[in-house]
Amino acid sequence: VLTVEDGRVVVTTDVLVDGRHFRRDWSTAYDVGRRAAAANLADIAAMGATPTALLVGFAAPSDLPVQWAERLVDGLRDEAARCRAVIVGGDVVRSDVITIAVTALGDLGGGEPLTRAGAHVGDRVCVVGRLGWAAAGLRLLRDGVTEGVLPDALRRPEPPYAAGPALAGIATSMIDVSDGLTADLGHIADASDVRIDLDRAAARRLGTDGVTDDEVLTGGDDHALAFTVAPTARLPAEAVVIGTVSQGSGVYVDGKPVRGGHDHFLG
Amino acid sequence: VLTVEDGRVVVTTDVLVDGRHFRRDWSTAYDVGRRAAAANLADIAAMGATPTALLVGFAAPSDLPVQWAERLVDGLRDEAARCRAVIVGGDVVRSDVITIAVTALGDLGGGEPLTRAGAHVGDRVCVVGRLGWAAAGLRLLRDGVTEGVLPDALRRPEPPYAAGPALAGIATSMIDVSDGLTADLGHIADASDVRIDLDRAAARRLGTDGVTDDEVLTGGDDHALAFTVAPTARLPAEAVVIGTVSQGSGVYVDGKPVRGGHDHFLG
Repeated sequence: VLTVEDGRVVVTTDVLVDGRHFRRDWSTAYDVGRRAAAANLADIAAMGATPTALLVGFAAPSDLPVQWAERLVDGLRDEAARCRAVIVGGDVVRSDVITIAVTALGDLGGGEPLTRAGAHVGDRVCVVGRLGWAAAGLRLLRDGVTEGVLPDALRRPEPPYAAGPALAGIATSMIDVSDGLTADLGHIADASDVRIDLDRAAARRLGTDGVTDDEVLTGGDDHALAFTVAPTARLPAEAVVIGTVSQGSGVYVDGKPVRGGHDHFLG
Repeated sequence: VLTVEDGRVVVTTDVLVDGRHFRRDWSTAYDVGRRAAAANLADIAAMGATPTALLVGFAAPSDLPVQWAERLVDGLRDEAARCRAVIVGGDVVRSDVITIAVTALGDLGGGEPLTRAGAHVGDRVCVVGRLGWAAAGLRLLRDGVTEGVLPDALRRPEPPYAAGPALAGIATSMIDVSDGLTADLGHIADASDVRIDLDRAAARRLGTDGVTDDEVLTGGDDHALAFTVAPTARLPAEAVVIGTVSQGSGVYVDGKPVRGGHDHFLG
């Protein structure tokens, strides 16, 4: 039983399958847990809500070491603790394939939910968080580079959870960047019936050494928060302005139209 | 975003795996959906809450006919509609094994949640719903009998959803019978620190033709609601009194101690 401050709850669910959404040779059970929780918690934050609780459904073969499951739960719990959420329930069953189903709940604290549909002509487009780090980490892992900031960024994303509820009532639309920046801003452009123009050099500021331009623009799995905001609104210090909203449709980078990629690979 | 009348939400999750929790040669996709929803919705009702919403995570091989998934969702939706709940979200991913993760949410309507821990010495033990039907149906399906009331009871349980919230504030404890009557009442006896005595002949009234005594006492998957209630409390018409609560511990049938079975097979 969860208490919801203002009588509304936001909720989201994700399913992760061994070999498809994570690889046990690339990530420890603990990291798989961190990552599975992060994806759902970021989705809650992107609605302008504070994550409160996780439920975890876990299916695994009978020969999976019990420590693997324990470390998975440790990772889920620790990631939840990063935003003061807790695991409140779950189910454990047998299956030939390790499958993790995470449901996250969040509290709007009396505010209105942020959606993809509120961007206005004249708004700025901003991002809080990392762009392209996880995609670069995936590329390195595929090349056999297992250590470093970028492989770790894939294993343990660091979504800027606090920015979501902090921007409730300020941002006009928001999305958690999981499909890639241009693809996810495309969702906002479509839902809001506007055109979004991005500045590549500005977006690059959210990457880091070793991250390509393409990874910044199309890499998912960092779970940054992208949002639109009125030109007069005061921004959080960590927000980077990367573009503008105007009349029209679609997403443009330095004036050229783009089609966003939709790739979910994982570590 | 869900509105919760009184600011509290109850939530539960279950994972079903092809070949373990359902068999595609015994159940249609539609029936698998009905059954998956029923298990979770009954769990919500057993807390004295009204089910409001389902989230569905679905993992399946790429060669699964899309109609199978559509009929699954039809079944989930129709079962949810039986208690006026709706599907509010989900996730679809690829996996070699069909896996269905259902999360259900419910509303307490201002009341206190029913738990397993409130049974008092002197209470009556009651059940609303079916006992043993699904277990008998499983036995028949294994014997090649695919048609009839009992196989259908396994495929499409009919939990008495309305009785859960109707008994909030009246029952002292409640559980959804999924592990079997004696096992689940054992959970109440343990949590409430009491002894429960059952009358076999009374419990049999919740079975039907072709259901054995053992199936009545140990069969799960009908999702009946078992509860304890003060001797003076007024009972719903469909409730059957099957036992009493006294000092001590454990579950007894006709004066003999029992160890409850814990079997989850499925159709």
